[in-house]
Amino acid sequence: MKNLLIKHRSIRKFRPNPIPDEVLRELLEAAVRASTCGNMQLYSFVVTRDAELKQLLAPCHFNQPMVTQAPCVITVCADIHRFSMWCRQRGADPAYDNFAWFLNAATDALLAAQNLCIAAEANDLGICYLGTTLYTAGEIARVLNLPKGVVPVTTIVVGYPDEKPELTDRLPLDAVVHYEQYRNYTSAEIDELWAEREASDLTKRLLEENGLPNLAQIFTQRRYVRDDNLAISRSYLALLKEAGFFNQ
Amino acid sequence: MKNLLIKHRSIRKFRPNPIPDEVLRELLEAAVRASTCGNMQLYSFVVTRDAELKQLLAPCHFNQPMVTQAPCVITVCADIHRFSMWCRQRGADPAYDNFAWFLNAATDALLAAQNLCIAAEANDLGICYLGTTLYTAGEIARVLNLPKGVVPVTTIVVGYPDEKPELTDRLPLDAVVHYEQYRNYTSAEIDELWAEREASDLTKRLLEENGLPNLAQIFTQRRYVRDDNLAISRSYLALLKEAGFFNQ
Repeated sequence: MKNLLIKHRSIRKFRPNPIPDEVLRELLEAAVRASTCGNMQLYSFVVTRDAELKQLLAPCHFNQPMVTQAPCVITVCADIHRFSMWCRQRGADPAYDNFAWFLNAATDALLAAQNLCIAAEANDLGICYLGTTLYTAGEIARVLNLPKGVVPVTTIVVGYPDEKPELTDRLPLDAVVHYEQYRNYTSAEIDELWAEREASDLTKRLLEENGLPNLAQIFTQRRYVRDDNLAISRSYLALLKEAGFFNQ
Repeated sequence: MKNLLIKHRSIRKFRPNPIPDEVLRELLEAAVRASTCGNMQLYSFVVTRDAELKQLLAPCHFNQPMVTQAPCVITVCADIHRFSMWCRQRGADPAYDNFAWFLNAATDALLAAQNLCIAAEANDLGICYLGTTLYTAGEIARVLNLPKGVVPVTTIVVGYPDEKPELTDRLPLDAVVHYEQYRNYTSAEIDELWAEREASDLTKRLLEENGLPNLAQIFTQRRYVRDDNLAISRSYLALLKEAGFFNQ
């Protein structure tokens, strides 16, 4: 098990084999055993396997080939709709249409999603999270018929791997762990934490390809740039308002 | 491994035994192997073991005894500070002080947190997530000296279990899974999904104790009530603004 966690690599190329129903069910059963706020299970998994629907989802994920190639695309949603519906049917007043409960629901959803991914890898499946979900969450909601009170928070593609990528590097563990209280970084410490990655062959290749002087500028000028970041922030906030998660 | 996931129960009573350093390190190593947006690792774990600091954190978690009893309290934070500092030292302009990157960082943090919890349980440790983190995130930030760009998203208490709670129930799997697209619920389906829980002895006991006619009203009138939900929403949004996560 410990090996399983530390050997995770994201898989972006899949064999065409479908996931047997009983295996898929096992992943979902593992997902729902994750911790959940007040045992409210404020999430929904939308499991899309139909080729036409995957084609409709593909542009929401910038047409990355893995979306149509993976046998299974799972859109993970924060969901206060189901619980609120139950409350109203019992004459109870559900005050969960606000930001706190978006956070609770998103937390529930993400912990369950990670359980699902680990169960997938335990079954020799590969997974990849699609961060593009936040960029186009409103369009995904339309494709999947999400009702008010349900918003996508991430997407997972799942299938049998058709590649064996190397383990990606991570910052030294000390970069992300603080003992007792947060200990702020000195400039020298920041330099040191990133030194190995900056000196790598991969980084050198990226700098050449991009004609940029350092790795940080690849992030800020190529990968995640200001205008996109602001546009995504605004569109996701607009979606939260539209979906009834922002009444406070 | 599969058994491990489906056997999770939250642990709220701990033996005094400390967690050996090498075991703690193993949990943290498992955490950082979780998927992370662009390999940016936009999170920090603040591991608090000092008795005095745990005493300061306890009121932030409504003085639940497990906070001082557990050998280890891990505050899981969304962190754009470290990455932004690196960018600035490289002459790059980090535009991550906005809502999209709060979401990316919180997602990174929660996936890593769940890995940590699973690794903990694989090591015979018990864990409990503290949802109270969102209620008092500003105060937690002060206790832990979090700089601008770092906000708590959840807290995990970890230690050797001193109780063996029953597995909690869950809704039927069909309640949370939709195939192809979201299929909205009929009223009858909602009744059916909650039927078993509503008929349980636990529910009957709760209704008697609370003098309320049904379980939904225990949620809306006792556990998670409107005024608190709105206050938490507002205070967390205020914290996001103060911490520099809301410039869009």
